[in-house]
Amino acid sequence: MQAFTGSRLDRADAIRADPAALAELTNWRAKLLRLDGLMPHVSSQNTLEWGTLADAAEDAELVFLGLDTDESGTAKPCFAAVPAQGDASPRMANPRLWGLMATLTPDDLAIYGGARSIVDWHARHRFCAACGGAAVIAKGGWQRSCTRCGAQHFPRTDPVTIMLVEHDDTLLLGRGLGWPDKAYSALAGFVEPGESIEEAVAREVFEESGIVAREVQYIASQPWPFPAQLMMGCTAIADNTDITLDTTELADARWFTRAEVQAAMDGDADAIMTAPPKQAIANHLLQWWLDKGTA
Amino acid sequence: MQAFTGSRLDRADAIRADPAALAELTNWRAKLLRLDGLMPHVSSQNTLEWGTLADAAEDAELVFLGLDTDESGTAKPCFAAVPAQGDASPRMANPRLWGLMATLTPDDLAIYGGARSIVDWHARHRFCAACGGAAVIAKGGWQRSCTRCGAQHFPRTDPVTIMLVEHDDTLLLGRGLGWPDKAYSALAGFVEPGESIEEAVAREVFEESGIVAREVQYIASQPWPFPAQLMMGCTAIADNTDITLDTTELADARWFTRAEVQAAMDGDADAIMTAPPKQAIANHLLQWWLDKGTA
Repeated sequence: MQAFTGSRLDRADAIRADPAALAELTNWRAKLLRLDGLMPHVSSQNTLEWGTLADAAEDAELVFLGLDTDESGTAKPCFAAVPAQGDASPRMANPRLWGLMATLTPDDLAIYGGARSIVDWHARHRFCAACGGAAVIAKGGWQRSCTRCGAQHFPRTDPVTIMLVEHDDTLLLGRGLGWPDKAYSALAGFVEPGESIEEAVAREVFEESGIVAREVQYIASQPWPFPAQLMMGCTAIADNTDITLDTTELADARWFTRAEVQAAMDGDADAIMTAPPKQAIANHLLQWWLDKGTA
Repeated sequence: MQAFTGSRLDRADAIRADPAALAELTNWRAKLLRLDGLMPHVSSQNTLEWGTLADAAEDAELVFLGLDTDESGTAKPCFAAVPAQGDASPRMANPRLWGLMATLTPDDLAIYGGARSIVDWHARHRFCAACGGAAVIAKGGWQRSCTRCGAQHFPRTDPVTIMLVEHDDTLLLGRGLGWPDKAYSALAGFVEPGESIEEAVAREVFEESGIVAREVQYIASQPWPFPAQLMMGCTAIADNTDITLDTTELADARWFTRAEVQAAMDGDADAIMTAPPKQAIANHLLQWWLDKGTA
């Protein structure tokens, strides 16, 4: 299972559009995810900490995350409050956050990731992109509505392709600008308007490496809450191996043998590369490739 | 090949970030896609009509679509101007547009779809969602930048799952609210922050029909320019067949046999359903299911 998937919450989407039901759930029994800005509070038992709605500011915008059913079978409404500031930075350069996330159960990690993406979106979308007027939270946080022109805005999720490129039992991997010397991962890029996943994979591989990729195949997907990507992991076949590096995107790209990838995934100190973190779908894709064996 | 894919344009993304190169391409040789609002101009030869930059308003915001290489090997820069108004409506209720699109080659249809999505996005995002300030076009139309707070905004593409649900050689299909009596198609819904494609498929199927779907498998994808979706076609297996209809989303949902789907795809007048249009990935998914044969 991919990190950031497998939330136990029932999104109960019918409630969002039902103001009476939503109002009834916004009660003293409801749980509020404890956040410090966008940082989670993690208990000494390595679980997400929850408070009550009384912990939110009087004028807080509350997002209905869904229903959490406890051991007794009681479904409790779960909320998160929109913080003062969002964080649009795509990379996660916060070691303390990664330390906290590493301790969470997969289930709690998924709840945190989903909640983070949506409250961050609200924090960065307080105004209407159509007219510049003030926009306010609606439908339990699954919409914002402009108070001036009435335009409706919806939480954003950006599809991103991330891909292994295979040639003769070797893999093309790249090192981003500013990454540690030995850190390599799958090439990746946003899907643009007007292209399919398969077209986006081929375009990104060609742009970043000059390699022509064909036979794109979908492997797995993952939500990635920095800030709200949908990572779609693919594999593709290359005919050529001559790399023309896009130096505006990558510090390096090269072909790795199966043994080199295996050593990185094993965490060998002598490995010529380090593998992407376990929370990233790139790690899953490398394992998929190793498990698949030689074609 | 899916409709709206296969554009011949080279997006030449390196040019977007290079103001000098972009300025050089913004010349009298450049082609401007002729649009009337968001409607294409189609020639008597059923091709998209192009003008020159002189056809754009003096203060028009121009989007660099890419390079078009003609028979002589000359690569011409292609642009589209942002119209006065966008159109956020998800459905395509415009018969004249569908008539025009039906005459276009697949290649031209892809160019139109991609151009439509991005100019429409600009038209609906003239202001900064972070601060309400005026936002202006940047990077050849692949960004908007706030003139007040400096926030950067990028064209939006919304991932949508669309899925066949299979049970015992029958398919679950639905009829949307307001659709013609016999029009059925695959269930579909937006991927939300915090979920994978596979989770979104299972959630949407359960929400709309009460059916529990498992073994989600990705089939194909398609950009859908109304306004800017990435349709991701999947299939899944259902164990139960008792439908609990979400009447806020669907007018009906039912199970169809292979013969019933075949008759619809053949356009039989006696068929109990009509198939989705050929331009929709749902049509492709139904054909995929028929071609696959009985498991």
